[in-house]
Amino acid sequence: MKKDYRMKETCIVKIGKVKIGGNLPILIQSMTDTLTSDIDSTVMQILELEKAGSEIIRLTINNEKSAQCIPLIKKKLLDKKCDIPLVGDFHYNGHILLERFPECAKSIDKYRINPGNIGFGSKEEDNFKKVVLLAIEHEKPIRIGANWGSTNKRLFQRFLNMGLTDRQATTQSLISSVIESAEYAEKLGLRKDQIVLSCKVSEVKHLVEIYEDLYSKCSYPLHVGLTESGTGLNSVVASSIAIGTILQKGIGNTIRVSYTPGQKELRSHEVKVCREILQSLSLRTFAPSLISCPGCGRTNIDAFGRLVHKVKIYIEDKMPIWKRKFPGVENIRIAVMGCVVNGPGESKHSDIGISLSRNRDDKNMSAVVFISGKKKYTLRGNKIEENFFDIIDTYISEKFSSI
Amino acid sequence: MKKDYRMKETCIVKIGKVKIGGNLPILIQSMTDTLTSDIDSTVMQILELEKAGSEIIRLTINNEKSAQCIPLIKKKLLDKKCDIPLVGDFHYNGHILLERFPECAKSIDKYRINPGNIGFGSKEEDNFKKVVLLAIEHEKPIRIGANWGSTNKRLFQRFLNMGLTDRQATTQSLISSVIESAEYAEKLGLRKDQIVLSCKVSEVKHLVEIYEDLYSKCSYPLHVGLTESGTGLNSVVASSIAIGTILQKGIGNTIRVSYTPGQKELRSHEVKVCREILQSLSLRTFAPSLISCPGCGRTNIDAFGRLVHKVKIYIEDKMPIWKRKFPGVENIRIAVMGCVVNGPGESKHSDIGISLSRNRDDKNMSAVVFISGKKKYTLRGNKIEENFFDIIDTYISEKFSSI
Repeated sequence: MKKDYRMKETCIVKIGKVKIGGNLPILIQSMTDTLTSDIDSTVMQILELEKAGSEIIRLTINNEKSAQCIPLIKKKLLDKKCDIPLVGDFHYNGHILLERFPECAKSIDKYRINPGNIGFGSKEEDNFKKVVLLAIEHEKPIRIGANWGSTNKRLFQRFLNMGLTDRQATTQSLISSVIESAEYAEKLGLRKDQIVLSCKVSEVKHLVEIYEDLYSKCSYPLHVGLTESGTGLNSVVASSIAIGTILQKGIGNTIRVSYTPGQKELRSHEVKVCREILQSLSLRTFAPSLISCPGCGRTNIDAFGRLVHKVKIYIEDKMPIWKRKFPGVENIRIAVMGCVVNGPGESKHSDIGISLSRNRDDKNMSAVVFISGKKKYTLRGNKIEENFFDIIDTYISEKFSSI
Repeated sequence: MKKDYRMKETCIVKIGKVKIGGNLPILIQSMTDTLTSDIDSTVMQILELEKAGSEIIRLTINNEKSAQCIPLIKKKLLDKKCDIPLVGDFHYNGHILLERFPECAKSIDKYRINPGNIGFGSKEEDNFKKVVLLAIEHEKPIRIGANWGSTNKRLFQRFLNMGLTDRQATTQSLISSVIESAEYAEKLGLRKDQIVLSCKVSEVKHLVEIYEDLYSKCSYPLHVGLTESGTGLNSVVASSIAIGTILQKGIGNTIRVSYTPGQKELRSHEVKVCREILQSLSLRTFAPSLISCPGCGRTNIDAFGRLVHKVKIYIEDKMPIWKRKFPGVENIRIAVMGCVVNGPGESKHSDIGISLSRNRDDKNMSAVVFISGKKKYTLRGNKIEENFFDIIDTYISEKFSSI
């Protein structure tokens, strides 16, 4: 995707040490699920999320205890050389907590508020105003994030009264809610480049519609995610399609996958999904791409499956070292192919490609290796894997030598 | 998505007992990876793929032995009451095998040929013609499936000579290759409604471009898939975005996820991904949707994670029975939410919703249950899961009683 693929550029907003918006890279966001007041667990999880590739981390700040712990969390992180931007997630009582705990308000890099639950009736405007004035005082950006799980009832009713369907009223109330709030924040003195917006629902097609509409109506950076997307394949597939579709329209500056971890999964699984979304659209690259066919009746399926698996693990294990020693290594494509039908051809579209013979007998297997599209080696027998790893190492160290 | 979302309708093609094209449902295709000549393993895998939801199954027919086994595989399947359409995947020698083994040619429901390797030089036209005449004789449809791993070299060179870049020449040679072949097949007497096309590459954005172009140039049904998409998250994410993007443009009549199974994964994992793609776009529904938030510092994360996991397993376990007893059950939405912020709201967008209290102590936990958007029950203590399953059962049996 070209750098200038966006129809229009949004403002650039600084969040701690990072910047989002304009044509800057799309950043990955995630959120802790530890009790914020459990300082050690929270610090540990933030480090895990950062290591996996999260670039902005959000924490719930829902009571006095959690607000008091924030400066301590920040200090512990800095002691561990982690200066990742932290975002406070506020609902109902953000205006109270941010005022009563100025050290908390100073320690975090962005305030996320929800216009659907910042206050009701006459309190709605008052409470919102308090948070905005505190953001101005502490020179922090805010994200105004609406969610159809907490739609602003006043606005929803307004659109229903205008004759809109439930779905249309949901769309319009979410969008109006964040845009009207943003305009009011600017009137109060917050700069345009201190505002980020989001409008989340949990249905893919609806989310795409909402972001197209929202993007056409404003120039604030947008945070994109399919809310409450579930768990397992269901969530990965739906989030990938929703976020992937929106990003392909040139919309979105940060992304999050709202994933319920499975019983044996780490919290950081959601970060891995975000990386795959960005990489599969060539928006960013994080690790060498592994291309492999599904195998079929032509393939020595055991040898092939094992080779694909081992190459995958090899790349994952080596990446921490490669990344330091060989800048740019993340851009290479490695193809592992099961047979001669598409093997040589696909290998030519890759930097390094290996194509197995169809012999089902492991000892007599052979494999052809292509380097930069040219047939270079023929490997045989049970040393194919080992030899192929050597070839990968040699290719990478020769091509990316950082001298 | 509305029924009339397609810009134009393609012809309708019959493949064995199923039909694709027009505004008919998008069907899921998969492929075996057993040795086709290993009849028992192949039959077993076809049954596994069918059970997972595959609706068309392709097998490699690459030599005499496999061609001879096809009628036996078909018979064994019919003995087991499985009449799923079978597609023969031919490369290089399809014209020979289909001619020499008429029982094979009769037993399969579609012939897939690859215009990139049907024959080279003067043989290209001859061999293609032979296959088409056999398809006419046996009254079978064909899929003309190009792949950038086996691009037709003659056409690729033609477009390079016209000054196109490598990427553009790849696009145009794939498209011309299938369209010119289809037009020639029609000239030979194959009906328009006996032809399906596909043009696969392994790069997401490129695939989308190719299918938009291909769709604009013909009215044959299209088979869609990201070829050689790799394994694990990488493949699931890239395939979801690629296929999901193309389907949202109204393009595509069958889909396949070309997934290399992980070391402990079944071949049918690719079928599950296909189902999630179609369901997340509301194109088809197969099982109740499970909506769940990712949990955060507000959530009793252990109780919540356990509940989401158990509801997921519960739905999967019950579905075979529900499907038979309660037609329509697959359309319901069940929301499992960790706290009060979006819990009640998200629950209102679902048929059944449960929203946990934020109490981290399991015994004193409480949960509010919503039915059709209305608060109906409050559950407490360590019986929450059990009670919630009862509520799900009651709701389903009352709403979908098939009487």
